[in-house]
Amino acid sequence: MPSTDPIRVLVWSERTEPAAVYPDGMNGIIAAALNERDGIVAQTAQINDPEQGLSEAALATTDVLVWWGHGRHRDVTDESVARIVRHVTARGMGFMPLHSSHHSRAFKALMGTSCDLGGWREDGQPAHLYVAEPSHPIAAGVPQYVVIPQDEMYSEWFVIPPPDELVFISSFLGGAEVFRSGCCWQRGAGRIFYFQPGHETYPVYYQPELHTILANGVYWSAGRT
Amino acid sequence: MPSTDPIRVLVWSERTEPAAVYPDGMNGIIAAALNERDGIVAQTAQINDPEQGLSEAALATTDVLVWWGHGRHRDVTDESVARIVRHVTARGMGFMPLHSSHHSRAFKALMGTSCDLGGWREDGQPAHLYVAEPSHPIAAGVPQYVVIPQDEMYSEWFVIPPPDELVFISSFLGGAEVFRSGCCWQRGAGRIFYFQPGHETYPVYYQPELHTILANGVYWSAGRT
Amino acid sequence: MPSTDPIRVLVWSERTEPAAVYPDGMNGIIAAALNERDGIVAQTAQINDPEQGLSEAALATTDVLVWWGHGRHRDVTDESVARIVRHVTARGMGFMPLHSSHHSRAFKALMGTSCDLGGWREDGQPAHLYVAEPSHPIAAGVPQYVVIPQDEMYSEWFVIPPPDELVFISSFLGGAEVFRSGCCWQRGAGRIFYFQPGHETYPVYYQPELHTILANGVYWSAGRT
Amino acid sequence: MPSTDPIRVLVWSERTEPAAVYPDGMNGIIAAALNERDGIVAQTAQINDPEQGLSEAALATTDVLVWWGHGRHRDVTDESVARIVRHVTARGMGFMPLHSSHHSRAFKALMGTSCDLGGWREDGQPAHLYVAEPSHPIAAGVPQYVVIPQDEMYSEWFVIPPPDELVFISSFLGGAEVFRSGCCWQRGAGRIFYFQPGHETYPVYYQPELHTILANGVYWSAGRT
Repeated sequence: MPSTDPIRVLVWSERTEPAAVYPDGMNGIIAAALNERDGIVAQTAQINDPEQGLSEAALATTDVLVWWGHGRHRDVTDESVARIVRHVTARGMGFMPLHSSHHSRAFKALMGTSCDLGGWREDGQPAHLYVAEPSHPIAAGVPQYVVIPQDEMYSEWFVIPPPDELVFISSFLGGAEVFRSGCCWQRGAGRIFYFQPGHETYPVYYQPELHTILANGVYWSAGRT
Repeated sequence: MPSTDPIRVLVWSERTEPAAVYPDGMNGIIAAALNERDGIVAQTAQINDPEQGLSEAALATTDVLVWWGHGRHRDVTDESVARIVRHVTARGMGFMPLHSSHHSRAFKALMGTSCDLGGWREDGQPAHLYVAEPSHPIAAGVPQYVVIPQDEMYSEWFVIPPPDELVFISSFLGGAEVFRSGCCWQRGAGRIFYFQPGHETYPVYYQPELHTILANGVYWSAGRT
Repeated sequence: MPSTDPIRVLVWSERTEPAAVYPDGMNGIIAAALNERDGIVAQTAQINDPEQGLSEAALATTDVLVWWGHGRHRDVTDESVARIVRHVTARGMGFMPLHSSHHSRAFKALMGTSCDLGGWREDGQPAHLYVAEPSHPIAAGVPQYVVIPQDEMYSEWFVIPPPDELVFISSFLGGAEVFRSGCCWQRGAGRIFYFQPGHETYPVYYQPELHTILANGVYWSAGRT
Repeated sequence: MPSTDPIRVLVWSERTEPAAVYPDGMNGIIAAALNERDGIVAQTAQINDPEQGLSEAALATTDVLVWWGHGRHRDVTDESVARIVRHVTARGMGFMPLHSSHHSRAFKALMGTSCDLGGWREDGQPAHLYVAEPSHPIAAGVPQYVVIPQDEMYSEWFVIPPPDELVFISSFLGGAEVFRSGCCWQRGAGRIFYFQPGHETYPVYYQPELHTILANGVYWSAGRT
């Protein structure tokens, strides 16, 4: 029977998100939300911690690494990137890069492609996050669609390997763009869930429906669903 | 080297499309458009022909079957359905069901699921057809997106097996819905391309960009790209 | 958090397996083995039960249906087949057809292809079942390969849709043949796991490693891993 | 209609193959075999050429890069690797790594995993290369299986992303091992075909059936089938 031990989550941030929006960091609010869920124990780490919060000891006790970065991708060291990739592919650590982390070094290394976007636009318009595969465990308890009142638009072509499983597709009212906004991959022993919402200038990760999705993502990438 | 013989296409219709929109049938305009392309020889067939236009002799000389039906799915005989499925899976005939043909009997038999829609709405609003995989041969020569001025909205969940390749995703401005609008599958020896646009009350299949996509679909499902 | 309720399994047989090998039926030994696992409650059903053991009430309380048939596929009624397909695709019941059940009517309906084999041979030679994706939950606790001392050879081409996940590949020493012997698909709300071992004239399902795989298949197709 | 221009192939070698087996290099015999096929113009390059034979000008005029290396993977420069990856993902150059090139730097960068093998053994035993998807263009004209009289055994787990398309599976009589020996992926704009046969101490690439497969791989990875 699958393990019922608590899932140890490390929520990492480069800590450039505006303090006015995220006084405790985007990782702070996400860790707090995850800690309210059964079977999850979440901690935070950030780029200014010793070894960027990504020491061998830290990763060795992490079941799922949630990641947010935007302007400081290049400051993440070769050692940090190599360690993340190894823990994902060889040990089976889950990895959940959020929003602008499509350009994080570890995600690009795991994908093997540029992970570029077709376009983006910060227009304060709503995003509609549709469930494309309601039977997927990451969509459990999520309504047919979630409206995010304000978020950054991302559009195709998202230059990624075809996802093994496509869970969410978003549309953006500002220009009718679409984007594969919730994508799953198996890479070696590990599972990866990329999730598009969350531009740091809007309070996206205070939204309860997204907490459900993040928790589902943790259960799934830890191999529990 | 791949064959360079002309590809023999049969464009089938149940012939319930409004004569005011399609005086020669939706199959008539599509066959005419395909016949302007290099390497394609297209003919039409319809439900009122002998053996519903789907005799063993007709299918045996068909490389790709393009299909449109809406209100008369149940009138297609068991024999016709079995013959189509056999020619696709055992002989490698391509199959391209359009729009409301998501509920055609042959498509449902090949998919093994209900092929139901999450929702639909005939609101005369535009559809935006986005290319999700520009490197796919069916997207060759297609811009980043195509605006269809008026079409019926289809929304997820589209109850299909996960497509082997997802080429197009559409959004619908009336309600920000999204839909996997261009989907590819391999089934036995045959290739299937489902394409969502084309509600029969709007002149969708007069649009040149869609002719390009249909021709690309023919090349792909015939194994030429 | 994923459910921790017991998983209700129905193990079905057409009851043509030799009594000398399976005095309580192949379904009897499999149900007994599953009942030794945490979180699984397994019952048996068979073709001679009322409504073939597949009444609406029976399926409505089944989370995973394990299936074995060989010579009596045609005796399974249209009603039984339609009910199975509906419970899988619309309600999310798991479905695990074993060995010669590749030709069972419900499996063929869910696949949309002939599910024919490239070849087969009852030669009493060993089969080597290799794990092709050790990180898949169905491979949990399974060694790199399992030797089945005697089983029927099945060879490619297995005419199925490309599996969403390929967990096991077998080789057969009699002729060096290979076969995709553990295949997963999502169909609508339901998960399907086809598993190749188990010719009824050999005591294959007494082998403990296969009990582990069947239990893992139950956990997975019930959405618990 | 798909292009009919000749496909420009560059066949690269690190040139450590035994001269007794491949006096003109493995790349020499492969280029010669490809040049006998319609629509292909093949040239050779190797690690000792200026810029390792992989200058911007050379790759910019290459439609498909066929690659063999074994002992000198680390000598391929960062610049060469980055250039190959960019031409594959951004421009759509095909890439066909052979045999021990599973550990080539460009292949590993494109896969995002270790590309390690479960095991290997140089035992002079035959390999049986089975067609797992006869409808795939790379299998065109290939019999149900090809016997390679002597080759190195490779076994699962092959630590790769799940192939988008699995065309060949091999078994190895020395120990009944299996291996996913012909695997296809889309990465950005480019197509990748990994092919397992070809240990350099055996004259594998003189075998005509393999020439057919390599030519089919060229047509496919150039987008012509």
